[in-house]
Amino acid sequence: MSEQTIAEIGEFGFVELLQARLAPAAQVSLGIGDDAAVIELENLRVVASTDMLIEGKHFRKDWSSARDIGHRAAAANLADLVATGATPTALLIGIATPGDTKVDWLLELFDGISEEAALVNAHIVGGDTTKSETLTISITALGNLNSDGMSQAPLKRSGAKAGNLVILAGRLGWADAGLNALRKGFKSPKIVVDAHRRPKVSYFAGFLARDFVSSMIDVSDGLLQDLGHIAKASNVHIDVKTTALLPEQEILDVAAALNVDPMVWVMTGGDDHAFVATLPRSRQVPDGFKVIGEVFEGPAQVTIDGKHFLGPKGYDHFI
Amino acid sequence: MSEQTIAEIGEFGFVELLQARLAPAAQVSLGIGDDAAVIELENLRVVASTDMLIEGKHFRKDWSSARDIGHRAAAANLADLVATGATPTALLIGIATPGDTKVDWLLELFDGISEEAALVNAHIVGGDTTKSETLTISITALGNLNSDGMSQAPLKRSGAKAGNLVILAGRLGWADAGLNALRKGFKSPKIVVDAHRRPKVSYFAGFLARDFVSSMIDVSDGLLQDLGHIAKASNVHIDVKTTALLPEQEILDVAAALNVDPMVWVMTGGDDHAFVATLPRSRQVPDGFKVIGEVFEGPAQVTIDGKHFLGPKGYDHFI
Repeated sequence: MSEQTIAEIGEFGFVELLQARLAPAAQVSLGIGDDAAVIELENLRVVASTDMLIEGKHFRKDWSSARDIGHRAAAANLADLVATGATPTALLIGIATPGDTKVDWLLELFDGISEEAALVNAHIVGGDTTKSETLTISITALGNLNSDGMSQAPLKRSGAKAGNLVILAGRLGWADAGLNALRKGFKSPKIVVDAHRRPKVSYFAGFLARDFVSSMIDVSDGLLQDLGHIAKASNVHIDVKTTALLPEQEILDVAAALNVDPMVWVMTGGDDHAFVATLPRSRQVPDGFKVIGEVFEGPAQVTIDGKHFLGPKGYDHFI
Repeated sequence: MSEQTIAEIGEFGFVELLQARLAPAAQVSLGIGDDAAVIELENLRVVASTDMLIEGKHFRKDWSSARDIGHRAAAANLADLVATGATPTALLIGIATPGDTKVDWLLELFDGISEEAALVNAHIVGGDTTKSETLTISITALGNLNSDGMSQAPLKRSGAKAGNLVILAGRLGWADAGLNALRKGFKSPKIVVDAHRRPKVSYFAGFLARDFVSSMIDVSDGLLQDLGHIAKASNVHIDVKTTALLPEQEILDVAAALNVDPMVWVMTGGDDHAFVATLPRSRQVPDGFKVIGEVFEGPAQVTIDGKHFLGPKGYDHFI
């Protein structure tokens, strides 16, 4: 089995392997192999998010294992859901792949996705597999908006208010530092390179925060750009403090070795999927978060220590 | 605006255009532009289905307009949901595209998707746009399992029983005939070529049937192969009658011109998204359906007039 390609076993053969491999989930009453999946929700407000990952752009098979790529692909979607205040329940996985891709590689990709989903008790429930010259992973995550069984409003980007604190849970700049090390041909330091391969998402800090924050976002395009989305949608001025965002020693070391400014990674690096939120001052800072700035009256802008950042602005997928 | 490329306006510019273009839907409390979409469901059984369409494999820009491709991509997913007994509510659209794709082309693609979704009162609620050398459309459709406000069980492939009738709503072989005409360089007859470009799905026949049938599937990989899925999952023998499946004159004409057997298109052609179902004999044949065969005790197999079909078996996406 192990050395077969996807073209050799075909789409239906692959679906049968997946059916045998993926554990059935209690909340899924119709899963992989039928026309559609049926998921039993806890309440009527379903939250959905889609992300696409393209080989060569979002991942490279020589830099990351299939399992790592699966973890990262799932994390991007799960973090989006948690940032909306939702509890993820189900994932649908679309794979477009060249016919000579090894079945084992694909099964490990699914293992990585399943393992990351298991961190928040979510499951793969369906998907599609087809042929393409460009290996493409499309993940849709579904979740429920709830808190102690009560349906609640989603956290929107437009909820930030002047006077709120800006709080952060998770790492910034690590995935970007790892990516830059890989681009220069380095495979170490492992802890930094691994941060690109497999993000460590603070899911539970996100769950804890959702009942108290006025807005939340996961940092996927860079802190400044993602805070910019909140500033624009909420029409507020957000200022962050460099003293709260000093890079860890591992990042400083890689930056020194590559001769770059580590604050660029911290401010504009994506893919760590840290949660950044705005919090009314009447609330206690939730476990796992730290204060990194403040929200002021508009006009909509993001500043660092009161000044505009002149480096690259973040990440637009066509630039 | 019209002549700009996606690389020129970027992902965020494109999202802003979409926000202005797509009408907000009553059941969507958080739509395009936030981290995730929030959809208000009517009951707790959500149905989800994903399909990927790849340029060069599933569509060609010189054969179909962007709007046609949008209709077809949406139809494939919506038909999957209806075949499960669900009412579609929301679509998430992932687009991976080369940077030189015209924004207008992409907006027309979304218009086609929206128009097809509007046929069943569903709406685009979110998605992702990223860069890829291979133009790829990934659609996830969400729906609800219900009937007159009551939550009901999904229709499974395993529900067919010996003694059931096999019933069909919609066309067979038309999309495949149109595709074969296009492959040979013909752009006519238009009615047949258009059947490839934009399937005519009998959504309402599907809605009418769901309360009475024992299994249902939409024909996306060919009648024999899709009935084969039901036969296998239900462990039954399904026999269809050629007298009930005689090709229409338009198909006979194209087959004569291309010198092929039109029954191959009828039996193995995909992409018309006809609904084929199994119906207890105690039930009246639902409006829009006709009887095309019978279900017998297993072993699991599909026959035509009692004989095995010796032509190509259908469509596996890696063969």
